[in-house]
Amino acid sequence: MDIKQRTQIYKNLGSFARKCIYGVLSASTIPNHIAFIMDGNRRYSKQHKLVDGEGHKVGFSSLMSMLRYCYELGVKYVTVYAFSIENFKRSPEEVQSLMDLMEEKIQGLIKEESIVNQYGVRVYFIGNLKLLSKPVRLAAERAMEATAKNSKAVLLVCIAYTSTDEILHSVEECCEEKWDEIKVLDDGKHEKDVISVLDIERHMYMAVAPEPDIIIRTSGETRLSNFLLWQSADCLLYSPSVLWPEIGFWHLVMAILEFQHKFCYLKKQKQA
Amino acid sequence: MDIKQRTQIYKNLGSFARKCIYGVLSASTIPNHIAFIMDGNRRYSKQHKLVDGEGHKVGFSSLMSMLRYCYELGVKYVTVYAFSIENFKRSPEEVQSLMDLMEEKIQGLIKEESIVNQYGVRVYFIGNLKLLSKPVRLAAERAMEATAKNSKAVLLVCIAYTSTDEILHSVEECCEEKWDEIKVLDDGKHEKDVISVLDIERHMYMAVAPEPDIIIRTSGETRLSNFLLWQSADCLLYSPSVLWPEIGFWHLVMAILEFQHKFCYLKKQKQA
Repeated sequence: MDIKQRTQIYKNLGSFARKCIYGVLSASTIPNHIAFIMDGNRRYSKQHKLVDGEGHKVGFSSLMSMLRYCYELGVKYVTVYAFSIENFKRSPEEVQSLMDLMEEKIQGLIKEESIVNQYGVRVYFIGNLKLLSKPVRLAAERAMEATAKNSKAVLLVCIAYTSTDEILHSVEECCEEKWDEIKVLDDGKHEKDVISVLDIERHMYMAVAPEPDIIIRTSGETRLSNFLLWQSADCLLYSPSVLWPEIGFWHLVMAILEFQHKFCYLKKQKQA
Repeated sequence: MDIKQRTQIYKNLGSFARKCIYGVLSASTIPNHIAFIMDGNRRYSKQHKLVDGEGHKVGFSSLMSMLRYCYELGVKYVTVYAFSIENFKRSPEEVQSLMDLMEEKIQGLIKEESIVNQYGVRVYFIGNLKLLSKPVRLAAERAMEATAKNSKAVLLVCIAYTSTDEILHSVEECCEEKWDEIKVLDDGKHEKDVISVLDIERHMYMAVAPEPDIIIRTSGETRLSNFLLWQSADCLLYSPSVLWPEIGFWHLVMAILEFQHKFCYLKKQKQA
């Protein structure tokens, strides 16, 4: 038996073990939407004395594994915080190298053998895409177009995104839409209650997906850093202490178990 | 030595021990603003087989202790999530009994011997106060008026509050304010970028305080339940597993130590 055959056997075994665990998890509610804050790529680089940017590459491969596990398990929506508007404030070299990495990875997403095609995933890029460099924006638009007919699962990549920017954008859209409906009252003030919470939600970039059930943030950080603030009102925040490139299958399983435990409690509370 | 004297000695000892710990904590940065989600009063009632509503009374006394510790330590702003708009959906009896309790406690806040007067605390009630019953609203307004000249510390009581309602209210105020500034462009659309993130922040109910440094939510829950979503972008969420009536001095100390640890890390990261 050569190394290739042996590797294949280990792979099959791993895949079989995962399927068993999916079976166990499926006995309870499977989350519909999981979001990830991929924190710790730079620290991983430093800790392992890697060349700048290598941490992000390892991080990307962790992301691919995580996507595979989620879609295998039947999680329909996965959102990742790839690049915040704040990140543009990093050094020009770092921003450029991240943009290059993103362009390459986005192009990879739509290749035939990619996870996206394997699981029938529709890809959305969420955020103020105008802020991106032209090659990245074009790659993002092409990926959205190329996957527009996929419907089995959804991947939302937040890029040039912050939550406050998203809310502001939505408010502007609401104002534009409702402009002519708002009446001037006798006292010279304008009619209130014309814009509703539902209007704001309808115009959010994230309106294409339901609210997340779990946000997983690595590095043990329990802050949202301006990610999905509006959408995370009832969301479980799970913070394993590992850095993003170190995240593995068991962290996902633990997050889902905690979600299932809390979900049962909330359901009971609502019935009470 | 009678019991009264002995109790006094224990109290003094406790107070002295606390002061020593404050001294240690003050060697690093003291948070400027701590917010509390007081979760678990009803579960505490059930676990201890108390009459309905008794859990909330024990919870209120925990809150008073927590306020004392915060103000002693020099935390200037404390925010508590007292009653959300969602809570109005509970049974009419429970809502009524909570309103009665709140009216009584709000009246107690401005009594001479209260913590508010002891520490020179200005009280704000934050939320859509129109939704409250008249006696509670009047009590709240009186308390705000009575403490308006206090300036040593601030207590913000979120009542009839949800974060999405706060954002919506702020958006309406922005629209009203900017109405006449927005020009119609040649293409018939309206000028964009007239409302900014700063405008929205300025009109928030919470604009009277800086953003919180720590949100402490008891019962081990790591969700925000529509509390300070906009303001908690960079906030540490600390979730001790105890129910709210069981929260004690050491939980606060642990939260502050974690904040100081992360604060140092963030400061270093910014300098890097």
